Amino acid sequence: MDVQIDDERFERTVEAYSEIGGTENGGLHRLALTDSDKEARDTFVNDLEALDLDVSVDEVGNIFGRRDGAEDLAPVFIGSHLDSQPYGGRFDGQLGVLTALETLRTFDDHDIMTDRPVVIVNWTNEEGARFAPALLGSSAFTGRASVEETLSTPDEYEGTVTLEEELERIGYDGDRPCTAGDIHSYLELHIECGPELEANGNSIGIADAIYASTWLEVTVRGQSKHAGPTPMEDRQDAFAATSEAVRDILSIPDRLDDESVVTVGEVHVSPNKRNIIPGEVTFSIDFRSGSDTVVTEAKNEVERALTASCRNHGTEYDIAEIMAKDRTDFSSIVTDAIEDATNSFDYPYQYIESVAGHDAMPMNDIAESAMILVPSVGGECHSENEFTRMDDCLAGANVFANTTYTLATKR
Amino acid sequence: MDVQIDDERFERTVEAYSEIGGTENGGLHRLALTDSDKEARDTFVNDLEALDLDVSVDEVGNIFGRRDGAEDLAPVFIGSHLDSQPYGGRFDGQLGVLTALETLRTFDDHDIMTDRPVVIVNWTNEEGARFAPALLGSSAFTGRASVEETLSTPDEYEGTVTLEEELERIGYDGDRPCTAGDIHSYLELHIECGPELEANGNSIGIADAIYASTWLEVTVRGQSKHAGPTPMEDRQDAFAATSEAVRDILSIPDRLDDESVVTVGEVHVSPNKRNIIPGEVTFSIDFRSGSDTVVTEAKNEVERALTASCRNHGTEYDIAEIMAKDRTDFSSIVTDAIEDATNSFDYPYQYIESVAGHDAMPMNDIAESAMILVPSVGGECHSENEFTRMDDCLAGANVFANTTYTLATKR
Repeated sequence: MDVQIDDERFERTVEAYSEIGGTENGGLHRLALTDSDKEARDTFVNDLEALDLDVSVDEVGNIFGRRDGAEDLAPVFIGSHLDSQPYGGRFDGQLGVLTALETLRTFDDHDIMTDRPVVIVNWTNEEGARFAPALLGSSAFTGRASVEETLSTPDEYEGTVTLEEELERIGYDGDRPCTAGDIHSYLELHIECGPELEANGNSIGIADAIYASTWLEVTVRGQSKHAGPTPMEDRQDAFAATSEAVRDILSIPDRLDDESVVTVGEVHVSPNKRNIIPGEVTFSIDFRSGSDTVVTEAKNEVERALTASCRNHGTEYDIAEIMAKDRTDFSSIVTDAIEDATNSFDYPYQYIESVAGHDAMPMNDIAESAMILVPSVGGECHSENEFTRMDDCLAGANVFANTTYTLATKR
Repeated sequence: MDVQIDDERFERTVEAYSEIGGTENGGLHRLALTDSDKEARDTFVNDLEALDLDVSVDEVGNIFGRRDGAEDLAPVFIGSHLDSQPYGGRFDGQLGVLTALETLRTFDDHDIMTDRPVVIVNWTNEEGARFAPALLGSSAFTGRASVEETLSTPDEYEGTVTLEEELERIGYDGDRPCTAGDIHSYLELHIECGPELEANGNSIGIADAIYASTWLEVTVRGQSKHAGPTPMEDRQDAFAATSEAVRDILSIPDRLDDESVVTVGEVHVSPNKRNIIPGEVTFSIDFRSGSDTVVTEAKNEVERALTASCRNHGTEYDIAEIMAKDRTDFSSIVTDAIEDATNSFDYPYQYIESVAGHDAMPMNDIAESAMILVPSVGGECHSENEFTRMDDCLAGANVFANTTYTLATKR
């Protein structure tokens, strides 16, 4: 059977949610557990209750809405996240939650009773922009992270509060235990956040894997001195050492694997005064590759680059790995179902390895999982310029609804 | 004649002023026009009044204390600044003000009446750490800067206030017109802020020149995108372009003049998130050389470096020059007087060109000026580790008092 999403209602839903924490440039500024995230969550819970779902919130604030199946089988989970990057876009995360919501509305429209229960979910703090690292809610849910540690995660964006305090403040410190139980499968739709689907003219990407990745935090220590009378040869300039190392680190993909990517996105210079030689610099490294081995080699290359630049500048360094994720290979049960649904609509598609991390990674530990990706115009992502054409959103939603139906049907 | 500073009182004075805004690591955190700067100013004014000086405060908060001479001649100005760097040291600036204060106390001790009046001065916001650029008070006083623009300078350290608002808040918006009038000469003592005097075993540096310098502010514009799925070749990474350019810029002294110095001390990355490619970076360049021509050539080299790195990374750049100072050649009238005083005490000394800028630069525009420098242990400056041995401070103070006497004596 092919179910069809109600395109007008779907568009209205996306518009309505985009007003919550919407920016004047058409983006979203809705960081996890802020007032605007609370408003989005409240709207979401209302929408779930309007569908007569069994709504629950777990200890880390993940929100679930359960739609019963005809039989008492392990459920299908569908969803994504409502939190955004700072001044991010209106598609990253939200589109996956709203596609799942419209899928359940469409099932109601057509009085569809699935064999398996279907549970829609909004994961807490996927972005990691406020509480690092990313994927906190889904990681706690699947046992990758402890609930206790997750709750004590500090706000790194602007405050001194913890995730637990913010959950309590906005009333999303739920009482459902944060454990997964038996789950049949997990399906998530997300924007690609990269240029490949658009470049190839495809509306649907079937993600069958997610890149391995590491987040490193580097500290370079030199000495703060007056920028004037300290001769160049007497300096231990932490930013001079940093810029030399960064130039080297950013060329690692050229040397190891030209499909890997590396980013130095966050830099803090101390004391950060124009007439004082930097005494300390901390900076982040985000490295991703389709191969676990390349990630390991890249970490060695980072050590080598820092050893060389710190020797040249009389500085010292430390490296801390604050996140490490192995390559994820998704389930062919789910990717086959996506491919069948895509073919039944005749949408142009391709298989794709996601370089971005998603909640489907931890979910893949405990359930048959895969993802549907839709094109990002210009590859824009994590910025207010994010855009996905409504035709592509609808194509994704139609494939999503039918894949959900297939997964929820007993074989 | 040789006058001698009272060494115990001088030490006590330095200790007492070091408590105002003192840090737990023995430094000073006393930014211009903050509460602790007000406290230091109040103490200073009390000390001037205790000497029966004619105290006045001008429109930009410079504090003057006039000691009459025997004749109505153009006065000798002596002083420095009481403001500090953020978490800076207790010698930079303050030592020069307190040396001038002790000089006048010593004149009183010995009932010395000079021919010329002597005016002690504390200049507002020498450091430029809170209100950029540096030397605001002395520049307004000597006509290098307009009073109006000086008053409207914004607080760049933490607030949104202007210099004028802070002057009013702490009660140092004086009514003396900010103009110099006829001044005979200006003498300032300061720590070297560099390693040369200590390395050569000299207690006294006679500064006969100050390096030319420029402060540039560079903005590099790229595009913020997701650090994951954006392939390396599709990036316009503003920090990649920056680190490549900075590496090049920091090697300019090697190529042009190995006694020049260059510092990239302040860096701001936007949005500064570990999983977002930097869309914009601003950074400062501080370049100093004994030669005006080398500074001009260095600015061309900065342009060349940025053009190349921005071409490599698909980014764009702007450069704004926010401060430019030509080389200062001090007056031989003053350096001769310093040399005579130094010889009469038999202190080891050398002539030196100061790389650091000082209030004596603008003062040299309108009066015969020069400086006495005393050694900085390890060349430490603009940090809490600043240190000058008390023997050297006293040597400097003795030379200062006798030079002041010579300058204030009619020829």
